Amino acid sequence: MTIEAVVFDVNETLSDMTALASRFAEAGQPPEMLDTWFAGVLRDGFGLAAAGDFRTFGQIAAGNLRGTLSAEQIDHVLAGFRDLEAHPDVPEGLRLLRDAGYRLITLTNGAAAMSEPMFARAGVLELLESRLSVEDVATWKPAPASYQHAADACGLPLDRMALVAVHPWDVHGAQRVGMCGVWVNRQGAVYPDYLPAPDAVVTDLRELAAVMA
Amino acid sequence: MTIEAVVFDVNETLSDMTALASRFAEAGQPPEMLDTWFAGVLRDGFGLAAAGDFRTFGQIAAGNLRGTLSAEQIDHVLAGFRDLEAHPDVPEGLRLLRDAGYRLITLTNGAAAMSEPMFARAGVLELLESRLSVEDVATWKPAPASYQHAADACGLPLDRMALVAVHPWDVHGAQRVGMCGVWVNRQGAVYPDYLPAPDAVVTDLRELAAVMA
Repeated sequence: MTIEAVVFDVNETLSDMTALASRFAEAGQPPEMLDTWFAGVLRDGFGLAAAGDFRTFGQIAAGNLRGTLSAEQIDHVLAGFRDLEAHPDVPEGLRLLRDAGYRLITLTNGAAAMSEPMFARAGVLELLESRLSVEDVATWKPAPASYQHAADACGLPLDRMALVAVHPWDVHGAQRVGMCGVWVNRQGAVYPDYLPAPDAVVTDLRELAAVMA
Repeated sequence: MTIEAVVFDVNETLSDMTALASRFAEAGQPPEMLDTWFAGVLRDGFGLAAAGDFRTFGQIAAGNLRGTLSAEQIDHVLAGFRDLEAHPDVPEGLRLLRDAGYRLITLTNGAAAMSEPMFARAGVLELLESRLSVEDVATWKPAPASYQHAADACGLPLDRMALVAVHPWDVHGAQRVGMCGVWVNRQGAVYPDYLPAPDAVVTDLRELAAVMA
């Protein structure tokens, strides 16, 4: 099986989301609220996908803060996405993969435009062949149609593509449709024992490039 | 449209899960970990459903604690489910609904046996015609097949049934397949503005019985 294109998840996989914690603190909330809120946003996005329905990340992200934060505070928290920085290993990792001949794509459950400033600041915007969002097909990852969207955009069969993510649910969803699933484990986490093993595990994108070169 | 059967979600809708927070504290974790963990369990169960796959609540619940808690601590936290009590409004609410002629069913993403001690202690076990789990059909709520399982068990079309839950994702999933969706809002929460309104909103099961009588 020859991999020709590498599809990257964006939130947390390429971006360092921890900076959002301070925005919750500025809104008078405990910084740990970031984790609870983000898990709830994914829960509700996946729930809609399981039910055969769809709303945008922005709709769900804001909706899950109402009742706790004011409209101004919600805007402040969500505006933080545009200020996130790429993990330090991302620029070199992407460049090495591109130099090795791989086509590089991003596929996010969020809005594609949201991460454009981050990619520009990291100097990797021109390395990315396309930056896709599940909004184009109105179904969140890990539903099969979301990965098929990336295959269609690349004109490749799914088994010629790898999906790279820090989230086990994303690795698993990609493997279910025949992609190569790569788990990025920067923090020494434990992969869920109830899922099949990833096809590869790397600590960061530099190691990914070394493995795939 | 005449409702003949009322299907209740179990975790948090009938059971008071807040008692689990002390089990996290006993395991040396902040009690707020309950919310983050439970959101993550639902996220991963829904993710599997969206991907067309299935694992049990027990598998995912334990898996999401590995790496943070020891095996003994995980057992201690999960054993807490058997000690949960029903919300104070549950016994009277169920009895009034049963007296009004409704068939009463539970449908949980967990294991049906897990909540049997709670229903027995609350004196409502004999009011429940059947206690169903999504494990029987290997797909979590809010996927359509989970609700269809309840309809099949009752021998009723979905539009003769109401789904009662504290979780908007459950109310929405039920409405998507044609059930009457009732949101129980004991805590003055805000219903997500990105979902269609529930068919009814009640503060507890006594009010539900009054509305449906």
